[in-house]
Amino acid sequence: MKISTVKGTNDYLPKEAALRDYLMDQILKTYQSCGFQRIMTPVIEDIENLDKSEGGENLNLIFKILKRGDKLEKALEAKEEKELSDMGLRYDLTLPLSRYYASNKDKLLAPFKCIQIDRVYRAERPQKGRLREFYQCDIDIIGTTSLTAEVELIITTAQALKNIGIGEFKVKINNRKLLKAILTTAGFGAEELDSVCISIDKLDKIGLDGVKNELAGKGYAAASIEKLAEILSTKPFTLSKASEICPEEESLKEIQFILESVKAVNSELEIDYDITLIRGQGYYTGTVFEVESTKFRGAIAGGGRYDNLIGKFLNDSVPAVGFSIGFERIFGILTDIGYQIPDRKKQIAVIYEEKDFLPAMETAKNFRETHNVALYVKPKKTGKFIDRLKEQGYDGFFIYGQSEELQLIGD
Amino acid sequence: MKISTVKGTNDYLPKEAALRDYLMDQILKTYQSCGFQRIMTPVIEDIENLDKSEGGENLNLIFKILKRGDKLEKALEAKEEKELSDMGLRYDLTLPLSRYYASNKDKLLAPFKCIQIDRVYRAERPQKGRLREFYQCDIDIIGTTSLTAEVELIITTAQALKNIGIGEFKVKINNRKLLKAILTTAGFGAEELDSVCISIDKLDKIGLDGVKNELAGKGYAAASIEKLAEILSTKPFTLSKASEICPEEESLKEIQFILESVKAVNSELEIDYDITLIRGQGYYTGTVFEVESTKFRGAIAGGGRYDNLIGKFLNDSVPAVGFSIGFERIFGILTDIGYQIPDRKKQIAVIYEEKDFLPAMETAKNFRETHNVALYVKPKKTGKFIDRLKEQGYDGFFIYGQSEELQLIGD
Repeated sequence: MKISTVKGTNDYLPKEAALRDYLMDQILKTYQSCGFQRIMTPVIEDIENLDKSEGGENLNLIFKILKRGDKLEKALEAKEEKELSDMGLRYDLTLPLSRYYASNKDKLLAPFKCIQIDRVYRAERPQKGRLREFYQCDIDIIGTTSLTAEVELIITTAQALKNIGIGEFKVKINNRKLLKAILTTAGFGAEELDSVCISIDKLDKIGLDGVKNELAGKGYAAASIEKLAEILSTKPFTLSKASEICPEEESLKEIQFILESVKAVNSELEIDYDITLIRGQGYYTGTVFEVESTKFRGAIAGGGRYDNLIGKFLNDSVPAVGFSIGFERIFGILTDIGYQIPDRKKQIAVIYEEKDFLPAMETAKNFRETHNVALYVKPKKTGKFIDRLKEQGYDGFFIYGQSEELQLIGD
Repeated sequence: MKISTVKGTNDYLPKEAALRDYLMDQILKTYQSCGFQRIMTPVIEDIENLDKSEGGENLNLIFKILKRGDKLEKALEAKEEKELSDMGLRYDLTLPLSRYYASNKDKLLAPFKCIQIDRVYRAERPQKGRLREFYQCDIDIIGTTSLTAEVELIITTAQALKNIGIGEFKVKINNRKLLKAILTTAGFGAEELDSVCISIDKLDKIGLDGVKNELAGKGYAAASIEKLAEILSTKPFTLSKASEICPEEESLKEIQFILESVKAVNSELEIDYDITLIRGQGYYTGTVFEVESTKFRGAIAGGGRYDNLIGKFLNDSVPAVGFSIGFERIFGILTDIGYQIPDRKKQIAVIYEEKDFLPAMETAKNFRETHNVALYVKPKKTGKFIDRLKEQGYDGFFIYGQSEELQLIGD
């Protein structure tokens, strides 16, 4: 039998699991303090829901579950790959949420402000920092077009990051409608916009020349490409620059409102308009945002408005906006810097000779009112065992029949 | 798109999710206070590990994940069902733990006392109370044959159940070795024992006559069946009765030690030997135990010793024993009796006119030091909205620009 985990998934040692628990708990508590309610949805979704969900690239990364019994036999005869599976593992928490809302909306507050902290799955090509099983920490506000929803999500997400010791970051914000208006002004056709966005999204990786080459390769007009290149090379490309290009565009005001409101609520928060911010999902319709760690580089949270996704489950159209913390990135950063959990409950060992099991249990019980207490039979090499306890983060020990009081293990 | 969850899985509303969170948190904290350390393992396991794991009936209930890309194409040509999947969803937490221990043992304390609280999957025929996605709460002690491990697991599990308001239950205990010795004395052959156990396991459902008929149908000797029937109809069939049948059997002492030690540590705990207790898994080797709710009927926790499972991953044999709380049964019971979470953080709403968003945010921020605070725009029918808040478990509200102080919502 194989002792390693399957590719792209991890086992977590006790110290790692303790940090993960702590971080998820802190994020949950911050979200709850800001009035969001936790919900839970299944990891497994109907395969059709997943396939039709406009998840962009992620649709190619779905883990599919094999049909069972007679249905599988029939499917095998048909020899059609599509027929083989009836369910799949979710690739994000937004699609399950949309289904959930459609199914339960009469039992929920309106607007509905909710939390999901849970696992998602993507069949990524395994590489450093890319997991196939990972956690996301999402908050969403469903049922309002008011931009106060965007403001609340940004303020809450920033607070959660601060509460877990991720202090230095900036929020970037863009709007799909504004970006499309700018690209249209540059001369791109309506049917070209999504493809142009995909190329712009690679700016970080392939540089401006790379983006220009890719667009030329796609056969777009040279004049439009030049115009876009000029915009992308304007630094900083501010909101007022955008407003010079398409002064009538309504979404300019949307960004303006969000920037001003966030600043008014939390003046210390760094937030800026960024024309190059795309966010991959096909379902975003308006605002998109991302948090970038200025200390550790890279995106640590992202989200946006998806006003049409829930409508796919209902006859009604239902506006919605969400923000998701990339938990694994946060966990990686804090592990790398040796982050210590503040104020955790003290953990000690009661060490005993086998014959003293019952009275040692009694001793442990007394310590348990204030400590986490593990019982261990006294090993031959007690000193070595104490070293192991220290490695595991134990704070002290008590040797039954020998210690007069708790012995602390120093750092 | 389909708005319901896939068969055998559930969405949880905010109040339900809050109860689930609370229960898992209480169970976790109890386990930790007794010196167990939480670990985390992936939901996905290698399909071969699952297939070879001696999980009994559960091996027929594995959700398999379809291969992807070239590998899938090759498998489709072979048209062999077995070739189609490379991974599967775990059906319990014991198999992943065994793999985990084999992989990480040098980094762990010995004996290793650990917690897993997590999801498992079984492709059960959906029926009331049988879920396909559900949680288990496991504690295990790996690396010792000492029966103090069994005692610690029983004491800790009982404490966890008590801490979440499940007060009335009894612990049943049996031992595979003793049961096999008794059956051998009754005249069954070594190769017949597993099959006889499967029939005994149905005693609750089909009664003694049912068991006798089933065994006769399997073609076993009438004399052995009669002898077994006599034993099974002896009420109570005590440990001293068992000792009359096979006085030399070593495992009699094992059960005796566990019963006496548990009583010594917690005299209030009801615990008894039960010859009819089987527990289905093929991997159990010695002690098996189960907690039965005396108030709500049915098993709410179960486990046993599995001294050979980890050895399948290592050259070494490694003894181990575990106890698992069936979370969904507990959640069902507490939901049915309308269990209220004690001492939860108060949840309030700050209600405001759209124009007052920024000062309302400020008001909310002040309340957040002591409360969970949600912001809502004042709806036309405020009274109706307050009723909705009450339904959702809110404790109070504050209308910005109108309330002088927090208005409590009565029960």
